[in-house]
Amino acid sequence: MNILITAGGTSEKIDAVRYISNHATGRLGKIIASVFLEQTDTKLTYLCSKQAQYPVDTRARVIFIDSVTDLKAQLEHLLTTEKFDAVIHSMAVSDYTVTQSFPSEDLFQHFAQLGASAHLADKTSAQLLDWFKESYQSFTPNALPKKISSKSADLFLALEQTPKIISAIKSLQPQTILVGFKLLVGTSDEHLVKVANQLLLKNHCDYVVANDLETIHGKEHHAWILDAEGNTQHCWTKEEIAQSIFQKIYSK
Amino acid sequence: MNILITAGGTSEKIDAVRYISNHATGRLGKIIASVFLEQTDTKLTYLCSKQAQYPVDTRARVIFIDSVTDLKAQLEHLLTTEKFDAVIHSMAVSDYTVTQSFPSEDLFQHFAQLGASAHLADKTSAQLLDWFKESYQSFTPNALPKKISSKSADLFLALEQTPKIISAIKSLQPQTILVGFKLLVGTSDEHLVKVANQLLLKNHCDYVVANDLETIHGKEHHAWILDAEGNTQHCWTKEEIAQSIFQKIYSK
Repeated sequence: MNILITAGGTSEKIDAVRYISNHATGRLGKIIASVFLEQTDTKLTYLCSKQAQYPVDTRARVIFIDSVTDLKAQLEHLLTTEKFDAVIHSMAVSDYTVTQSFPSEDLFQHFAQLGASAHLADKTSAQLLDWFKESYQSFTPNALPKKISSKSADLFLALEQTPKIISAIKSLQPQTILVGFKLLVGTSDEHLVKVANQLLLKNHCDYVVANDLETIHGKEHHAWILDAEGNTQHCWTKEEIAQSIFQKIYSK
Repeated sequence: MNILITAGGTSEKIDAVRYISNHATGRLGKIIASVFLEQTDTKLTYLCSKQAQYPVDTRARVIFIDSVTDLKAQLEHLLTTEKFDAVIHSMAVSDYTVTQSFPSEDLFQHFAQLGASAHLADKTSAQLLDWFKESYQSFTPNALPKKISSKSADLFLALEQTPKIISAIKSLQPQTILVGFKLLVGTSDEHLVKVANQLLLKNHCDYVVANDLETIHGKEHHAWILDAEGNTQHCWTKEEIAQSIFQKIYSK
């Protein structure tokens, strides 16, 4: 079987030295990889961040990526040049990327300059909101500097949504078995399963692993595995999650 | 000799899973530690981030910290309970910490609501700027959520300055030999040395290591070591920087 696993977390540059990232370690991804590699016919591609844990095995090709843009390019390349029996997308992908950084005063100065010659007194609250949105469009602080100066008392980082990586997978390879992951923090089981199910339907996943950061402690890793038929399976450890994913894919 | 080294980079939480950090690896800090540990009478404390490289030696006490707040508390504790012959502060400390996150529209909505009943038409550009600053003071988005939703099209992260850690060191231990570090990106040698010298004077450093990210490649690590008497020494590798710092401290 030819398996593609993504693991760890992406990171988005703020400047040459700073970045936004997340605490994903790749530990679960590595355990999933090791379960598949117990089968002698497994060929495995493992896409991960440089800090992530990864399998060391001659049948595992490890590819390192940093940002969502890297991940997207690499994933599109792989999915258009190679056929995978399954894609296990456990990587924590940044939802936002940094587009600008500026002291809050720079933005307020922009509004004040435009506002002095606009007829703000004639506007309702709703019209003012539109005016702010429009005026923000023409706010162009300097491009991200090589290294942001620490002199300003405060700073705004403007972030925009990254493209949804998971939605491209089934479009590029409709026949592959897709396993998605949903991590929430401090929520109820009902809400978690509901949100995970939305992810499954929207992205045509075959399975989604739903988990909550607050019930992950060391080896203990509480998760639900949902499938497209509405079944849910309860797992209690990373090993159990990995074995369950393997069984489901192997028997499909 | 009793030596305190800080190394790696701090990280600042955005929410339970996301954070802002920097690319500091602790590699130089570890090499400096190893040079000091070649002396049998060295006792060493090594404060670093969890991702950083650190010395493995029975005479090295390693303490892990995450945020600037952690670093400050730990450093103050150490400097008020123990006497250090030298403090080598190579850690890349976040200049800013995250205080709020919100969709830009929430802020504009706040301005629009206040603006509808303010007499904005009567104000000059300078008065408007004051009005924006004042109105921003009363903007209180929800506290940082456990995990920021990915639904909003954009996001602003509001950051505020962290306390300057280095300035506290000589206040707490005036007799210690303090080595500061200054990293810039893509600047001239003249500017780098000037900025490093300002750091030295402001924080009563005995030495400052001035380096530029663009002249650090693997083993090659270009740096100037400045002292309070106006001397500068040129180094070309991490090993050379470490040896120079050791010599200066040991012979002082």
